[in-house]
Amino acid sequence: MENLKNISVAFIGSGNVATKLATSLHQQGVCISEVCSKTASNAQLLATKVNAKPILQLKDISSEIDIIIISISDKALHEINLSELPNKALICHTSGSVDMQVLNICSNYGVFYPLQTFSKDTKIDITEVPFCIEGNTQENQEKLMVLASFLSKNVSKVNSKERAKMHLAAVFTCNFTNAMYSIAEDLMQQSGLDFEYLRPLIKETATKAITHSPSQIQTGPAVRNDRNIINKHIQELDSNTDYKELYSLISKIIYKNTNKA
Amino acid sequence: MENLKNISVAFIGSGNVATKLATSLHQQGVCISEVCSKTASNAQLLATKVNAKPILQLKDISSEIDIIIISISDKALHEINLSELPNKALICHTSGSVDMQVLNICSNYGVFYPLQTFSKDTKIDITEVPFCIEGNTQENQEKLMVLASFLSKNVSKVNSKERAKMHLAAVFTCNFTNAMYSIAEDLMQQSGLDFEYLRPLIKETATKAITHSPSQIQTGPAVRNDRNIINKHIQELDSNTDYKELYSLISKIIYKNTNKA
Repeated sequence: MENLKNISVAFIGSGNVATKLATSLHQQGVCISEVCSKTASNAQLLATKVNAKPILQLKDISSEIDIIIISISDKALHEINLSELPNKALICHTSGSVDMQVLNICSNYGVFYPLQTFSKDTKIDITEVPFCIEGNTQENQEKLMVLASFLSKNVSKVNSKERAKMHLAAVFTCNFTNAMYSIAEDLMQQSGLDFEYLRPLIKETATKAITHSPSQIQTGPAVRNDRNIINKHIQELDSNTDYKELYSLISKIIYKNTNKA
Repeated sequence: MENLKNISVAFIGSGNVATKLATSLHQQGVCISEVCSKTASNAQLLATKVNAKPILQLKDISSEIDIIIISISDKALHEINLSELPNKALICHTSGSVDMQVLNICSNYGVFYPLQTFSKDTKIDITEVPFCIEGNTQENQEKLMVLASFLSKNVSKVNSKERAKMHLAAVFTCNFTNAMYSIAEDLMQQSGLDFEYLRPLIKETATKAITHSPSQIQTGPAVRNDRNIINKHIQELDSNTDYKELYSLISKIIYKNTNKA
């Protein structure tokens, strides 16, 4: 296989994921030639960081580019005019929920999905991020596997159907977990209590789930269907019917899942 | 104030919380004189660890004990015959959800609540655990504050009403968060995927919530009411009506809470 460190990569998009991937590849000595974004200032900002050329339109991407990483919202991904992209390049997207086949008018395509939440102001150890890779051919898949392995120790071949399921599980793990923190924050604020009290508990709960099977370590009133506490809690939530409904539903699921035959 | 390190403490209970508190106080040089548990082997096990006398019945607790920490289930706490306890001692419980007044037939009573999840096989840094303290008199409250401060840097006076609200928020933060992990684990297993993929995401999601306001950093399809992904996910969950209902409800709550006027 060719030495991928001699290739040129272009990014379409300049958000959190594009920025983390582009800067990390750049640090690993991979040449990021171009950064394409509709917003000139965003293209310029990321391009400067990785010593690339900022580009405003897809049709201006050089035909010499080897790999194009499209890292934009799912909605924007569906709207992109793929026929404007250079024909020779290996084109991949970074979405968890979009099927690889949306790229199938291209000759060479694949998926380069980092299963992690990225934001501007938190540092992520990219070497620990699971990369889920797919390619339309064995060769393209291998190229993307090698590219991902420059960044992470945790690179796997994952097909679109598996990736969709992972993305759904990731929504529970990340977005819905944060929703639980957020409801707790709301409840504390309603009583004038500092959310700070709960931060050690957030940490310990996550730490346990990292070293155990979460289903094996479930605790709380719902596991033992302790109606005394459950009813007291639901009563406390009385002014918020959504929270009340949520409390009952999660408690039902916990009880069912931990008391399976 | 008297030097609390010269006092004697008895524990009623020998579970995870009792074990962590007794061993930590013992390490700090506080004398744990007695450990009372209905189950002889449990009483013996903890008593040996803290150089105490194992006791099987409440009425055998020495009348010379200064502080008695009752660390048992809420249900057992309601059933305990408090009149059997020595009259002079300061009696406290460690429950998040039980009002201090359940102890009001005692002369001296209070609450010694560590807001954390304890289990046998994970190490907790007790110095970071928030202790919520209450006492029936200023003097008893101060005694328990001092005792807690031997263990933790994070000790507060919290009344029973506030503590009940904290406990409810803690159920969302710990039990319900673990339920989200557990559902994610279930979804992964249903597709033959390793839960390991999600562990870096668990860690990062918790890390973000420890350094930010969770309501300010909520992400995911629900925030922008992205019906395309939401409907796809709900369709994926079709075989599990509870998960489907849960997905819709949490998404509704996230949308409402992040799009408040």
